Amino acid sequence: MSHHIRVITPIVSDLFSEAQLQPYATDSIRLTHTRIDKGPASIESTFDEALAQPDTLVKVLEAEEEGCDAIVINCLGDPALNPAREIVNIPVVGPYQASMHLANMLGDNFAVISVLDNVRLLLEHLAAKYSLSERYVGFDYVNISVLDLEADLDGLVKAMTEKSVMLIEGQQANSIILGCTGMLGCAQGIRTQLLDRGLDVPVIDPLVAAIQMAEAMVSSDLSHSHHAYQTPPEKDIVGYSFPDRKENKKTA
Amino acid sequence: MSHHIRVITPIVSDLFSEAQLQPYATDSIRLTHTRIDKGPASIESTFDEALAQPDTLVKVLEAEEEGCDAIVINCLGDPALNPAREIVNIPVVGPYQASMHLANMLGDNFAVISVLDNVRLLLEHLAAKYSLSERYVGFDYVNISVLDLEADLDGLVKAMTEKSVMLIEGQQANSIILGCTGMLGCAQGIRTQLLDRGLDVPVIDPLVAAIQMAEAMVSSDLSHSHHAYQTPPEKDIVGYSFPDRKENKKTA
Amino acid sequence: MSHHIRVITPIVSDLFSEAQLQPYATDSIRLTHTRIDKGPASIESTFDEALAQPDTLVKVLEAEEEGCDAIVINCLGDPALNPAREIVNIPVVGPYQASMHLANMLGDNFAVISVLDNVRLLLEHLAAKYSLSERYVGFDYVNISVLDLEADLDGLVKAMTEKSVMLIEGQQANSIILGCTGMLGCAQGIRTQLLDRGLDVPVIDPLVAAIQMAEAMVSSDLSHSHHAYQTPPEKDIVGYSFPDRKENKKTA
Amino acid sequence: MSHHIRVITPIVSDLFSEAQLQPYATDSIRLTHTRIDKGPASIESTFDEALAQPDTLVKVLEAEEEGCDAIVINCLGDPALNPAREIVNIPVVGPYQASMHLANMLGDNFAVISVLDNVRLLLEHLAAKYSLSERYVGFDYVNISVLDLEADLDGLVKAMTEKSVMLIEGQQANSIILGCTGMLGCAQGIRTQLLDRGLDVPVIDPLVAAIQMAEAMVSSDLSHSHHAYQTPPEKDIVGYSFPDRKENKKTA
Amino acid sequence: MSHHIRVITPIVSDLFSEAQLQPYATDSIRLTHTRIDKGPASIESTFDEALAQPDTLVKVLEAEEEGCDAIVINCLGDPALNPAREIVNIPVVGPYQASMHLANMLGDNFAVISVLDNVRLLLEHLAAKYSLSERYVGFDYVNISVLDLEADLDGLVKAMTEKSVMLIEGQQANSIILGCTGMLGCAQGIRTQLLDRGLDVPVIDPLVAAIQMAEAMVSSDLSHSHHAYQTPPEKDIVGYSFPDRKENKKTA
Amino acid sequence: MSHHIRVITPIVSDLFSEAQLQPYATDSIRLTHTRIDKGPASIESTFDEALAQPDTLVKVLEAEEEGCDAIVINCLGDPALNPAREIVNIPVVGPYQASMHLANMLGDNFAVISVLDNVRLLLEHLAAKYSLSERYVGFDYVNISVLDLEADLDGLVKAMTEKSVMLIEGQQANSIILGCTGMLGCAQGIRTQLLDRGLDVPVIDPLVAAIQMAEAMVSSDLSHSHHAYQTPPEKDIVGYSFPDRKENKKTA
Repeated sequence: MSHHIRVITPIVSDLFSEAQLQPYATDSIRLTHTRIDKGPASIESTFDEALAQPDTLVKVLEAEEEGCDAIVINCLGDPALNPAREIVNIPVVGPYQASMHLANMLGDNFAVISVLDNVRLLLEHLAAKYSLSERYVGFDYVNISVLDLEADLDGLVKAMTEKSVMLIEGQQANSIILGCTGMLGCAQGIRTQLLDRGLDVPVIDPLVAAIQMAEAMVSSDLSHSHHAYQTPPEKDIVGYSFPDRKENKKTA
Repeated sequence: MSHHIRVITPIVSDLFSEAQLQPYATDSIRLTHTRIDKGPASIESTFDEALAQPDTLVKVLEAEEEGCDAIVINCLGDPALNPAREIVNIPVVGPYQASMHLANMLGDNFAVISVLDNVRLLLEHLAAKYSLSERYVGFDYVNISVLDLEADLDGLVKAMTEKSVMLIEGQQANSIILGCTGMLGCAQGIRTQLLDRGLDVPVIDPLVAAIQMAEAMVSSDLSHSHHAYQTPPEKDIVGYSFPDRKENKKTA
Repeated sequence: MSHHIRVITPIVSDLFSEAQLQPYATDSIRLTHTRIDKGPASIESTFDEALAQPDTLVKVLEAEEEGCDAIVINCLGDPALNPAREIVNIPVVGPYQASMHLANMLGDNFAVISVLDNVRLLLEHLAAKYSLSERYVGFDYVNISVLDLEADLDGLVKAMTEKSVMLIEGQQANSIILGCTGMLGCAQGIRTQLLDRGLDVPVIDPLVAAIQMAEAMVSSDLSHSHHAYQTPPEKDIVGYSFPDRKENKKTA
Repeated sequence: MSHHIRVITPIVSDLFSEAQLQPYATDSIRLTHTRIDKGPASIESTFDEALAQPDTLVKVLEAEEEGCDAIVINCLGDPALNPAREIVNIPVVGPYQASMHLANMLGDNFAVISVLDNVRLLLEHLAAKYSLSERYVGFDYVNISVLDLEADLDGLVKAMTEKSVMLIEGQQANSIILGCTGMLGCAQGIRTQLLDRGLDVPVIDPLVAAIQMAEAMVSSDLSHSHHAYQTPPEKDIVGYSFPDRKENKKTA
Repeated sequence: MSHHIRVITPIVSDLFSEAQLQPYATDSIRLTHTRIDKGPASIESTFDEALAQPDTLVKVLEAEEEGCDAIVINCLGDPALNPAREIVNIPVVGPYQASMHLANMLGDNFAVISVLDNVRLLLEHLAAKYSLSERYVGFDYVNISVLDLEADLDGLVKAMTEKSVMLIEGQQANSIILGCTGMLGCAQGIRTQLLDRGLDVPVIDPLVAAIQMAEAMVSSDLSHSHHAYQTPPEKDIVGYSFPDRKENKKTA
Repeated sequence: MSHHIRVITPIVSDLFSEAQLQPYATDSIRLTHTRIDKGPASIESTFDEALAQPDTLVKVLEAEEEGCDAIVINCLGDPALNPAREIVNIPVVGPYQASMHLANMLGDNFAVISVLDNVRLLLEHLAAKYSLSERYVGFDYVNISVLDLEADLDGLVKAMTEKSVMLIEGQQANSIILGCTGMLGCAQGIRTQLLDRGLDVPVIDPLVAAIQMAEAMVSSDLSHSHHAYQTPPEKDIVGYSFPDRKENKKTA
């Protein structure tokens, strides 16, 4: 029987579809998709991220209610990752966190290449928050906005490859993380071009990494610690309506 | 002429009033207050914080529009601090960030005593994000919810003093940060009781620290770096309405 | 089609069997097992580890030659992990590295409970080598040698639970890593007993974590960086005979 | 009523005057100035600093005796900062410590541009001592000695701007600290030139930062921790004469 | 031929004599001693240290002038270490720096037991300045002033042993550094008592460590880097008189 | 009476001889040499290192059995350093560990220039394991294999000097560590050429540093902590035969 992983895209534009995810489904992994109804068209700042979080949390509660086995939040900024863990029992995975840990295992350090310079501090802060700054050896960006990524995929792969070469040769980066989940599907092309130049480094597609990490957690019967991510105390909330939370009492 | 500092309380309950802030106003500092209209009754989790952020950002834009000289976000979780800096030019100060930096200058390290264990990870993550973890030597909590803090202030001061003594003697904490801005006004009482026991450590009231740090920035003619906190790209936003942003082009 | 993961046990005693691994096989994961022929009966020191490494590397080369998709080295000391990566192209996973990264994602920090005090420094050094020391909040041991672990599994679970409680309550550990792969199968029992005490923290079985991480890498079409783990230059070797290495030139 | 802040210049030459400080006085801040009688003409090495400290400590005791509310030591090396805190109860502020903390709040990282390469290690060591090395992203110098700074202020501003551009673009510095208090008054000019090039980063004048931080401490009724900076035991001292110390017993 | 190492005691009291040092002289090491003429009777604060530094630097210049091969500054606070390196070409060794590095090689971490709580911050700051804080696992003190150490050596050894046991068992300290060079000669007694309790950890006498490290430098024909410790620029100095400095141009 | 230091070369080729070591012997230091019988011709990868370790440990036990006072392992990778310490009571010194600590004392930071890029990660990992990464400011390599180093010593010195200049000027390296013990004897030549260019930085020959550090330990009557490096539990070992271990119970 397969595990049901819900991918939640925390933007209101239709950049992702359920059909697009199916290449990453397997006999073990069933993938469904939803996007938020309120929030920004794309996430390219912490301002965008702040507006994406409330409705993402609604979708997180719905996913658990609908019986999903795990949740992946489809944005490299890992928006609402910690609040989501506070309110559900099933594993919630952020693509950036998953990618950085995977990159460390594969290459001992990593560099990130994202869309705009605007996300630089956001990505540095997440590495610091996860205590992974020491192995974060470089950041660069292709200067294309999220919603324009799909316009010229060949150009994107080429630009990403150039930036990768600079980070590998200049900063001794041993692995590359694609800095936006909207770059889905580009990793293999970049990797091929890097191998052509004799540079054998893994290129990590963060959405794929997040799906695989979610599957690893579900298969190991593991979820996040409610000793770390504690259930929020009940209280009045004005202006947002949430589905009822399941009682956060896990059973073994 | 005095500087106009706007204190924004990012919760919908009436825990704070403008009158309560006036003891901290001076000839140089004029203090006005507002609270958010949509969000949680109090902030005791990252979930609460996620719901507090969007309307806090509305109030941040309004404050700049109204000609305030600086903004203080009145919650130790520093909610919406970075997104706020992305969208305004006037200084925005978070009480926790201000307190940790002040504590390091006064005591070379610090411990935090907050309301509930639920905020432990949130406060640890902020210290990591600000690269201040090395001097964060301890955390404890009095197990009183934010909205109950005012019920027994004498008891609160006594409990905070006991926890302080344990952190000073057991963890060699050299300064104490009150772990919730709702503890406003308790610092002096705790300090007095600590001095009575021969423990001469500063006790930092985070809202006061934030107001003073905001004043220091305004007086020095300094504001945050838009090279770090870059202006968010324009895009469609569904479900939230914001006042027009002023153009983020500073002039010297 | 399933992925073939080879588990290599780097000790000469028959503590593990292929049959024992099958509960962790799935439709996607085929598990085979081998152990080394030369080396120590168990690994409880860096001395033992030094003697386990050469024959482990022989088994690593054999696994790739036989067409395995990934390799797991079955010991928490991750013996021969880096040399193995230098000589093969398929992913090689160490249980401790996999567990620490998984623990950080699930609980933001971790503590390890192992067999003897002798491995304390070895485990600290690995955390430092992987740049994960900041979140390594505690170590303890049950004082039972590796080869005696199976003698009283109920007693082991009980002892591990007691040590876990101390680390969770005393050091604020948010997740527990079983400190020896010989504790295979104990995680669920410890977790149940911890939940009974109201402590909801993940308990990570390192061999299971390693298998899942290997599967995640194979499924993502990722392997380690040969920019980090470079192919050893050819040279004379006296006293050890190795199968021919495949040429270490990856193709995309 | 204003707070009386004493600025102590720890060099024997007349680089600073009380008149020069008055632009930084306000309704709240009264500024007086003194310089040491024994010591070096300027501080450009730890050797110079060692000779500046004893008489600086005399001036520190005098300031407290004269009823000052706070002390600022007017040199970026923060000479005698910790010993001063050991012997007085009023806040003592070092410009470099104040600037680094302020820079972290405004820009999340900082770079320093000083007079000579000779002070590089001194400034690195202070950042390490204050646990702020992680955000110290670069150092450069204009190669002008302290006593020659005033000879060509326009040239200085221009040189500082060029160095700033290199640190912002090459090291991703988000804020700039003027690396010598003798550069007083140059911050605005450098900031203007950086804005002209589209680089919106704060430029911190360390003496101004220190004065403002001292005012923030006095206004918050806070001083340094005598649990950290403990009163020196009484003992014989040969070759130096000090005013009597006030008893170091604070009262709330 | 032996190397001439000058031990400079940076206090004015006669706690040390040249005769006392002779047990540490060998065929290779000739030891001479001097003490300062101006300064404090003992060093138990950064205030004391500030007063000890100027005359220590006079003695440092004299030692090089007299043809010594290396200098040891006889105080755990390593007073004037960096300024001394700026003004001479021969190696200058600080006992604390030497001890911490030696301790890391012998035990991978260390704890310090000193005279009074007053020196706690000073010793922490030095560890941070030398980037050795990560392995500094504990501090304690016997509460005996420097000048009283010799009054009851047996009692001192016993007290030090008790504190050592607590640090080894409670903080997992793997080596102990005597926290004051005035404890010269006590290491062996403490070590013997620890071995009697089954605790096999090195006990480092910092003055001995410093002498040996000075000898290692001289024997390897190495001295400090003038790229790090640069020669101070010439300038007027009031109130201190120094012997002429030799030109700081080394020859290979 | 001199101390007998055994240098163990952990490769099977005859790169080193006892005669070659004699220039580093003194009245106090007697140097004898041995090499391993089984293992690689040179060490240029962690794979090579893994094969070098078992027989190195045989030689380590023999050295203690033969009454040596200390052991130096003659390879910059410090192979078998920790396992060796577990099985003997006399000090065992690794050249890289000794060099990094010495470099920190002499220059406050260091860079390493080695033979091939293959050892980059190995050397980074050791610095992390020893908690010295913060001061490791650069790595480079001359692209000459270990066994070819002696072919053109003048060319080697010249190439090392060029790399040194780049690291000193580009990375602010304050000291240089020769990245292979096979470069024995080159330090002085590199130092001379650097001084000719006005760059006064120490150049550390790691084998000499290790010998001197071993002498310092023996002269101070210190050896490694068996609380850190604990005696391995007895157990069956297949395929390796070892001399009997002396009982690991030290006496004072």
